[in-house]
Amino acid sequence: MVKDYTIGVDLGGTNLRAAAIDGSGTIIDRRATPVVGKSAAAVVDAVIAQVSALENSIGSKVRGIGLGVPGIVDWENGVVHASPHFPEWSDVPIREFVARAVDRKVCMDNDANCHAFAESRLGAGKGLRNMVMLTLGTGLGGGLILDGKLFHGDSGFAGEVGHIVVEPEGEACGCSGRGCLERYAASHAFRLHASRLDARVRDELLREAGVSLDALTPEIAARLAENGNAAAIGLWREFGRYLGVGIATMVNVLGVLTFVIGGGITKSWDKFIDSAKASALEHTYERHAAFLGLRRAKFSNDAGVIGAALQARDLI
Amino acid sequence: MVKDYTIGVDLGGTNLRAAAIDGSGTIIDRRATPVVGKSAAAVVDAVIAQVSALENSIGSKVRGIGLGVPGIVDWENGVVHASPHFPEWSDVPIREFVARAVDRKVCMDNDANCHAFAESRLGAGKGLRNMVMLTLGTGLGGGLILDGKLFHGDSGFAGEVGHIVVEPEGEACGCSGRGCLERYAASHAFRLHASRLDARVRDELLREAGVSLDALTPEIAARLAENGNAAAIGLWREFGRYLGVGIATMVNVLGVLTFVIGGGITKSWDKFIDSAKASALEHTYERHAAFLGLRRAKFSNDAGVIGAALQARDLI
Repeated sequence: MVKDYTIGVDLGGTNLRAAAIDGSGTIIDRRATPVVGKSAAAVVDAVIAQVSALENSIGSKVRGIGLGVPGIVDWENGVVHASPHFPEWSDVPIREFVARAVDRKVCMDNDANCHAFAESRLGAGKGLRNMVMLTLGTGLGGGLILDGKLFHGDSGFAGEVGHIVVEPEGEACGCSGRGCLERYAASHAFRLHASRLDARVRDELLREAGVSLDALTPEIAARLAENGNAAAIGLWREFGRYLGVGIATMVNVLGVLTFVIGGGITKSWDKFIDSAKASALEHTYERHAAFLGLRRAKFSNDAGVIGAALQARDLI
Repeated sequence: MVKDYTIGVDLGGTNLRAAAIDGSGTIIDRRATPVVGKSAAAVVDAVIAQVSALENSIGSKVRGIGLGVPGIVDWENGVVHASPHFPEWSDVPIREFVARAVDRKVCMDNDANCHAFAESRLGAGKGLRNMVMLTLGTGLGGGLILDGKLFHGDSGFAGEVGHIVVEPEGEACGCSGRGCLERYAASHAFRLHASRLDARVRDELLREAGVSLDALTPEIAARLAENGNAAAIGLWREFGRYLGVGIATMVNVLGVLTFVIGGGITKSWDKFIDSAKASALEHTYERHAAFLGLRRAKFSNDAGVIGAALQARDLI
């Protein structure tokens, strides 16, 4: 018997999470396992094992499976072009590999698009016609909900908002470009912003942090800011300022006024959000001020599995 | 008798153009008149006079009328929030004023959206699911065709691509922000780029141009570049470089790969397009190189009237 469940798989660089959801989006059962092998074959095997374990546990086959994968994903053709966490992968038809092995219908999308989908259907963006999802972590991912649907564009990977160019001659980026937003408004940005401080201020900050510049993380900057360290508070403001510049560009291009912001860095929400909003408003028409919404995501670790499983419900 | 024609009106700061089109988008008849009075009442009267003249000339009422207006236009409610060419206007319900006077159905949109619509239906973007229209002139306007339709966003005025932030701490802009793309890639940009030249080079350039810095226009820069002036050629490259940065940001955010570029500055197409494309590719994923299309618009002066009239066909 096939129950009206779908399974969402969230493939991270470190962990593979999987969950079965029912028609209301509630998680019925879940699994997680460390990602050991990084080859496509190893990952596909791990996905299959999780799906089988979940189906055994719920005592039923599921209707379909949704995969959320980090990186450049061609959702239409089910191909991962490239993924930061799986450097060997190049144009790998992961969707077909999984579908063939489990004999179930499978859809696949970028992980940030899965987050966007979850927030749009059941989270902070519920009921909105348009929203932009931003995930602040090691990188800055994004997903566009336009006219109620995920928008993928011609390339299949719209929403690469971490690569909005905020400094045309700026820091080199992994995308082969430079000056991309995620250099200034994701985890690594704290090192960059600290490196731009006056030397004396920076040295004092690092002394209080007890780490070298290279080891400065958002967590450390948050701890110092909580202790009232003015330089650390300034780093968070700088982070927010750039985030706001990127948001302003999206407001101007897309005319979308609600941004749902998730990812690990949102633990420090209060440290950057005022600065982000002020900077976004500085760079957009004044009339937007009353309408611009920067909302904290509802889902954290479950966003990926829920979004992937909800996509499977919709698309399969 | 009502013929199956619609009228498009393109309201510029200097001229008001109007044309009747048939079902194939062919212009049946046209009118143009200088814009004398700038008040809403004067402009509405001028629109009405043109519509009446056209209807008299074609010997029939038309099905509907489309208005293209520069500035911040709320197409849904038919209100012009603000227009650079009509500084007195603030939240003026132009659509209703015209509709009441002519007793015909009227739609209204931003002029760049009308351009986008014309190119999408009958021009350089015909048959494309997604495209971005850029109009390079005094400002840098834009319009988004997403999934085959004009996308307006929540604000009603998506496509304000001239306000992509390319220099967060850059030049002040009329939108109240700073560092907006249109400061670097529209008419006024030539003065800015020239001001950044080495003083000796700049003085020589202006001497050859025979104008002061404030009077440096794209036309003058084009003439000098055609005469082989290296500094002028460099100004066009700089213009293209910034345009490419803006295009890269749109590619990354929207995943759209075709840009249709119109407006007066495209007369100098060959002077900036290579630089724009190189810069766009520098700031996007390498895999886009084979797919990125920067196309020259098909329509020039008629884009506005045709797009407005085509919108009237579609929407009314």
